[in-house]
Amino acid sequence: MSDAAASAGRRGRSARRERRQSSAGGISTPYITRGIPFYDVLSDEAAEKIEEQTDRLLWEIGLEFREDPEVLKIWKDAGAEVDGERVRFPKGMLRELIKTAPAQFTQHARNPARNVEIGGNNLVFAPVYGPPFVTDLDQGRRYGTIEDFRNFVKLAYMSPWLHHSGGTVCEPVDLPVNKRHFDMVYSHIKYSDKPFMGSVTAPERAEDSVKMAQLVFGEDFVDQNCVMIQLINANSPLVFDATMLGALKVYAKNNQACIVSPFILAGAMSPVTVAGTLSQVLAEALAGCALTQLIRPGAPVVFGAFVSSISMQSGAPTFGSPEGSLLLNGASKLARRAGLPFRSGGSFTASKVPDAQAAQESAQTIAATVQSGVNFCLHAAGWLEGGLCSSYEKFVMDADQLGMMHVLARGIDTSDEAMAMDALQEVGPGGHFLGAAHTQRNFEGAFYRSSIADNNSYEQWLADGELDAAKRANTIWKQQLRAYTGPELDPAIDEALLSFIAERKASFPDSNV
Amino acid sequence: MSDAAASAGRRGRSARRERRQSSAGGISTPYITRGIPFYDVLSDEAAEKIEEQTDRLLWEIGLEFREDPEVLKIWKDAGAEVDGERVRFPKGMLRELIKTAPAQFTQHARNPARNVEIGGNNLVFAPVYGPPFVTDLDQGRRYGTIEDFRNFVKLAYMSPWLHHSGGTVCEPVDLPVNKRHFDMVYSHIKYSDKPFMGSVTAPERAEDSVKMAQLVFGEDFVDQNCVMIQLINANSPLVFDATMLGALKVYAKNNQACIVSPFILAGAMSPVTVAGTLSQVLAEALAGCALTQLIRPGAPVVFGAFVSSISMQSGAPTFGSPEGSLLLNGASKLARRAGLPFRSGGSFTASKVPDAQAAQESAQTIAATVQSGVNFCLHAAGWLEGGLCSSYEKFVMDADQLGMMHVLARGIDTSDEAMAMDALQEVGPGGHFLGAAHTQRNFEGAFYRSSIADNNSYEQWLADGELDAAKRANTIWKQQLRAYTGPELDPAIDEALLSFIAERKASFPDSNV
Repeated sequence: MSDAAASAGRRGRSARRERRQSSAGGISTPYITRGIPFYDVLSDEAAEKIEEQTDRLLWEIGLEFREDPEVLKIWKDAGAEVDGERVRFPKGMLRELIKTAPAQFTQHARNPARNVEIGGNNLVFAPVYGPPFVTDLDQGRRYGTIEDFRNFVKLAYMSPWLHHSGGTVCEPVDLPVNKRHFDMVYSHIKYSDKPFMGSVTAPERAEDSVKMAQLVFGEDFVDQNCVMIQLINANSPLVFDATMLGALKVYAKNNQACIVSPFILAGAMSPVTVAGTLSQVLAEALAGCALTQLIRPGAPVVFGAFVSSISMQSGAPTFGSPEGSLLLNGASKLARRAGLPFRSGGSFTASKVPDAQAAQESAQTIAATVQSGVNFCLHAAGWLEGGLCSSYEKFVMDADQLGMMHVLARGIDTSDEAMAMDALQEVGPGGHFLGAAHTQRNFEGAFYRSSIADNNSYEQWLADGELDAAKRANTIWKQQLRAYTGPELDPAIDEALLSFIAERKASFPDSNV
Repeated sequence: MSDAAASAGRRGRSARRERRQSSAGGISTPYITRGIPFYDVLSDEAAEKIEEQTDRLLWEIGLEFREDPEVLKIWKDAGAEVDGERVRFPKGMLRELIKTAPAQFTQHARNPARNVEIGGNNLVFAPVYGPPFVTDLDQGRRYGTIEDFRNFVKLAYMSPWLHHSGGTVCEPVDLPVNKRHFDMVYSHIKYSDKPFMGSVTAPERAEDSVKMAQLVFGEDFVDQNCVMIQLINANSPLVFDATMLGALKVYAKNNQACIVSPFILAGAMSPVTVAGTLSQVLAEALAGCALTQLIRPGAPVVFGAFVSSISMQSGAPTFGSPEGSLLLNGASKLARRAGLPFRSGGSFTASKVPDAQAAQESAQTIAATVQSGVNFCLHAAGWLEGGLCSSYEKFVMDADQLGMMHVLARGIDTSDEAMAMDALQEVGPGGHFLGAAHTQRNFEGAFYRSSIADNNSYEQWLADGELDAAKRANTIWKQQLRAYTGPELDPAIDEALLSFIAERKASFPDSNV
């Protein structure tokens, strides 16, 4: 058998497995629409108290917008009080401004079947974002490369449980800093047909991202529709820096979505309490979201919150902490009350390996993510070591967990078929349901089938080589990469992208800043 | 330094650590009182639909009460329709009967500071129950012994996050089946002062458990107060067997609490759907709970639900599944609507080792446990391998997770001090909160301090020996057992217990049935 035939055979099996898995999960849509209620830990009264403090904070303290006179002028013209780089907001000003932002919007993918709805009752899972390192059980931890980057794009494409291709799935450290955005955006377009994220590390790289999107979707389409979503972090506490403001302006002007995210480790970049931190999160998110509406009213924008805590002993960041879950939950309610889509959550952990700590911390955060009503979940798979490392094994372990979340988010079906009265009547006291007609009709899609979990007997597990979850995951991601076949890309578009990239790359020297 | 001095030194450090941890977690009560709302996945309409099906099921199908003519007579006298061992219940009969059961009750511990409130807004964590095997990283998996049993009682006693000493923390397989209950109950009384569970494996063993409780608490006190809680499993579907009925009658008659628990692996012992399974759970729990009230109106009783699913490929039980979480959540609402305390949840996993699978499955179930409103959580720490194995490492890993749940269950404090306006005013844009006066006042109790998680840098983790969570847990449980010092036990009570046990043991031959 030739390599190609072997590969096709693997692909066939893999495709069948994926279809089976999809059908087992009953998934036919490219994102989650919740069948369960929002879980709010904050009461309405508590939320109001936090909002009142945010109003005071915005007026009495204000935010700084650094090294960007254009933004300061925008704020002044809009009625804010501007004193140097400090901007103070009269009560109600920001809430008035965000009224033009859509409560829900579509991010288009180049394959329309992969479009995602961001906001409302929907939840979109996207992979890990930003790690300079990658790791796997075979090679260990090392700097990420563009090959790793492509691999993670492929793994996200292969998973029925990841709805989005993400952005910086790892830093391709083998490419120059000022040119790697071309290869990253191209990889998302080429190796996946799921929606993706653009570059934010400099305004011109944002412009390049928009230009590439225009080559794929057309200029008019991009101007009228969201085809990219971007991560704009606040420099907490209460600061937006020129880099992030530059990217925000480019994307908002082009009608592309910004996720305005306070990036907070509570105790260091915010007060050491959940409620105090929430009032700061709300202030930063409102200010950034409102700014997008001043640049282009109606531009899609997402209220973000990347909030965890630190160890008060060592100062090290902690993840998957109960305080992190409470922060996530509280911010979710504040975003919903503000009428904006909400981004938070992920497969967070401070662990260095895909062990029990990693799984426990990720599971705690993902549960809070789903229940709280997050609309866009970045870092949903692959995160390790406080976000410094993308893990191949953890990627597929997390993706499996996301599959479980699809089931959980559906809630409890109480249709007549789900009530199963006929099964209970057929079987009766002391009987067995495996052979019942109702079981036969329903068993295929009945229970989620984990790709990672080992439910066999101890003896069978011994015979299978005593593998732990990480070792089983190691086999799975390698199988998936071998089975990968990419989506079609119109050769004319591909060529246009490659020409644009070649021309742009040749127009300025490499640099690592 | 003598061994005793070294041990005292360790005790001192351990006690300080425990106090610090308690104070860090802000825990001053011996159980959790929720500061967060109940999270209900089932709507009221959906719950009513399930309850209506349960009514039909109870009347049209009924339950079997096997090999216990006394119970059949009790049902007949109460107005049920009895046909052989099959008992059918007119609509509303069981709900009328359970009205005498308390919605909340106190289980007394021999140390009154350890009393727990079961029901209402409270949550009590108890250790794993029932495994014949134990495992640790040093010795591997083997049959449990009475020494292992005592070790788990000691570990539960040492943990600030376990409120209860539990019951069969592992099977002491080195003791004869018909006499090991003496040693188990005695170990709970001797090595802990937290509340505990009695034997249910035969009516005479239940009588022995009551007798031993009477020696500790006094006969009158036991007759008027709950000092033991017991696990009475239904033999699902829709059957109660003579063993469980025998124990139920002894405990109810003596005013001791029964947890009536359908023990269901959906797809085998119930329909393959969540809603269908819930209607069966409700039928079994209502029938068992009502029976206790016929035996002694007002006797404390708990609506239990041990419900998971099976792999539809292999038939193997699965744990920590999304369907399991939905079942737990739905059953919790049904129990609350029935006005009864609810038992469910735990550190469930099918994994054979304390790895990522174990942690992920446990975390998913524990999150659902806390949010759904479980009142008594058995198996909260130490469960491995589908309940066949008590794991030393997982015990302390789970206990750490329970500590996090204490924080989560408190919810979000919005007192003026928690709002931290003074910190925000002091620090301002671009500042750092570590040195703020508010941080200094609050940092000690601010964030949960995990005993297991490693939040250090990768380089520090390498220097520390590249330990994963399980290996760190291995160090911790051994430290804890070395540091253990038991609570005082009145020598007269101790002597009375030992005499009673010696006399009883001598009165009949050893047997392994």
